[in-house]
Amino acid sequence: MAKKMCMAIFTGSVDKLTAAGVVLSGAAAQDMEVNIYVLLMGAYAFKKENVDTNKHLAELNDKKDEFFASLERLKVPKWIEFFRQAKELTNVKIHICGLAGKIWGGEKLEDFVDIADDIVGIGEYISAAEEADVNLFI
Amino acid sequence: MAKKMCMAIFTGSVDKLTAAGVVLSGAAAQDMEVNIYVLLMGAYAFKKENVDTNKHLAELNDKKDEFFASLERLKVPKWIEFFRQAKELTNVKIHICGLAGKIWGGEKLEDFVDIADDIVGIGEYISAAEEADVNLFI
Amino acid sequence: MAKKMCMAIFTGSVDKLTAAGVVLSGAAAQDMEVNIYVLLMGAYAFKKENVDTNKHLAELNDKKDEFFASLERLKVPKWIEFFRQAKELTNVKIHICGLAGKIWGGEKLEDFVDIADDIVGIGEYISAAEEADVNLFI
Repeated sequence: MAKKMCMAIFTGSVDKLTAAGVVLSGAAAQDMEVNIYVLLMGAYAFKKENVDTNKHLAELNDKKDEFFASLERLKVPKWIEFFRQAKELTNVKIHICGLAGKIWGGEKLEDFVDIADDIVGIGEYISAAEEADVNLFI
Repeated sequence: MAKKMCMAIFTGSVDKLTAAGVVLSGAAAQDMEVNIYVLLMGAYAFKKENVDTNKHLAELNDKKDEFFASLERLKVPKWIEFFRQAKELTNVKIHICGLAGKIWGGEKLEDFVDIADDIVGIGEYISAAEEADVNLFI
Repeated sequence: MAKKMCMAIFTGSVDKLTAAGVVLSGAAAQDMEVNIYVLLMGAYAFKKENVDTNKHLAELNDKKDEFFASLERLKVPKWIEFFRQAKELTNVKIHICGLAGKIWGGEKLEDFVDIADDIVGIGEYISAAEEADVNLFI
């Protein structure tokens, strides 16, 4: 049976989202079943209008230019592309936490990027976390 | 038997503490047994004099006004209230890491918010982590 | 049999690396087997030339002076010393993610601090995470 990963995405910053995307690509390559729960700051990043323009970093902010230049030089896919590709490869579901969405003015699923699957309450996250083989809070 | 969550709270920032509080409320609603270990920057936030005044964010600092305004508009409880309510609902223990406390000048349990249960060494965290069904590092 | 910890080190900041070091020292004291995977911003911190000079914090940046003064006053070892000591005590392996290394111009193992064991792809991290008793994303 496929191993299960439960990924809480608290972050709204491109550095952490890129790391999450790389981890996700690895999990997808190993056919894990992945449930992603988008929490507080994450909902900002998943809002439709922010996906392409968001340049926030959670760390090493004074290295921002070097970081983004390296991503480009190495042709690293944008974070959202990792998520999109993983969804095509394996069983990945992206759940937006309802409260988190509202913090950033997102009330409906259409307010978020098209690969978001549904809007849920925190209870679903807890249940998924309890069942997962690998839990990550990012 | 109740499932166990072990939550390492590294963060001293209100955005992450609020997310931790929401997760905690979900865990409490599902009757999990939760052990919280307050590490480095977390001990700053749990110090008595900082609980009400702390306005640090770990991420999206330029959205600070929007973030706090949304919390207020949506009547989201303050992070410490989530922790307080979870303790009333289920078996939640809050342990302050002794070294972390000292970093911020907190030597005694009374230096921290009243819902802190004890001051411990890192060994207790490792033991709790080994036994937990869900481990989160926040 | 020794319990296994899998630690993803995303962070490149001294506050989080110090917390990771303290956790690691606890895990080593309990003879856990630890696999560390150094991801994105972490690879910056593990580069040879940055280990001693890095003063970045991920949180509470306005408390930087107090934080570093407390570390000194309490004679807390530098983060890298925690890692070094843990490697001497127990089975700890430090793996640099190849992509992360390249982001910061590190192509070869010699570009990183001498306690790094190898450069790996994300697949190895996923496999280790699946097998671990305790997963932490720091």
